Amino acid sequence: MTLTADAVLSLSTFLPHWQGHRALTRRTIEAFPEGELFTFTPAPPMRPFGQMAGELLFVSAMTLDGLRTGEWPEPDWSTMPQTKADLLAAWDALSDRLAAEWSGVKAETVARLQPLPWGEMPGWVAAMYAVDNEIHHRGQGYVYLRALGQEPPAFYER
Amino acid sequence: MTLTADAVLSLSTFLPHWQGHRALTRRTIEAFPEGELFTFTPAPPMRPFGQMAGELLFVSAMTLDGLRTGEWPEPDWSTMPQTKADLLAAWDALSDRLAAEWSGVKAETVARLQPLPWGEMPGWVAAMYAVDNEIHHRGQGYVYLRALGQEPPAFYER
Repeated sequence: MTLTADAVLSLSTFLPHWQGHRALTRRTIEAFPEGELFTFTPAPPMRPFGQMAGELLFVSAMTLDGLRTGEWPEPDWSTMPQTKADLLAAWDALSDRLAAEWSGVKAETVARLQPLPWGEMPGWVAAMYAVDNEIHHRGQGYVYLRALGQEPPAFYER
Repeated sequence: MTLTADAVLSLSTFLPHWQGHRALTRRTIEAFPEGELFTFTPAPPMRPFGQMAGELLFVSAMTLDGLRTGEWPEPDWSTMPQTKADLLAAWDALSDRLAAEWSGVKAETVARLQPLPWGEMPGWVAAMYAVDNEIHHRGQGYVYLRALGQEPPAFYER
């Protein structure tokens, strides 16, 4: 598939867009001191970044599976990774799955309404939302890192 | 223009995507107390949110003009709005310009390399970057608001 004349993002350019953002989020997770990733928050009641990243991981996995199969069961949030090593390993495993399985996503599914746990929306809206939500929470992680005296990764590098 | 079979975002769906994010950023600006918007930071050396929002405003204006004309002069950052009222008025004026002028953006320009002040990239990459950068900094604004004891607007509403 190639970029069509009126497309801003096609199915084939969406994958590197998504993977580029996931690589940046991985560097953001890595930048957290192990002891702070799942405990620190600079502004209660906001969650620690490790919990946000676990949500991003599960929503991205659900989005890949949903776009491939048309089925969108709500993730079992109680099984989110609880250590930095587990989180990074699960992150990498999903990156590998995206690379291997994205070609199985059909244009019809992306255009059609999909039954997400939080309501029906077209597949492309769900795909965009997954990335937008990741950018949103990762931006929050940047403030957490600065509050911890850590340098966040460069935003423009993917 | 309609959504083509393999498109995740077309030129015509990109505009409501962008405007929806700009409406949410507007609500985020509004949620800041006047006295904190251009002064408060919870994590130095991070900038106050008013300065980030001024950057977002100018980059979005540059992106609209660049995609319409092919010319991308660097904004004059010294002229960014310095009060909440001025920032919101400029924000609304640009929303009106986007609504009126987006149809003048040609698919060829979006596909072609564009000379941004910080390097050449395809027009569609510049367009995506403008929105992604807005989501990133707005997410940071959410932490600022929480640190100020203010409730940020709902992320899923556009």
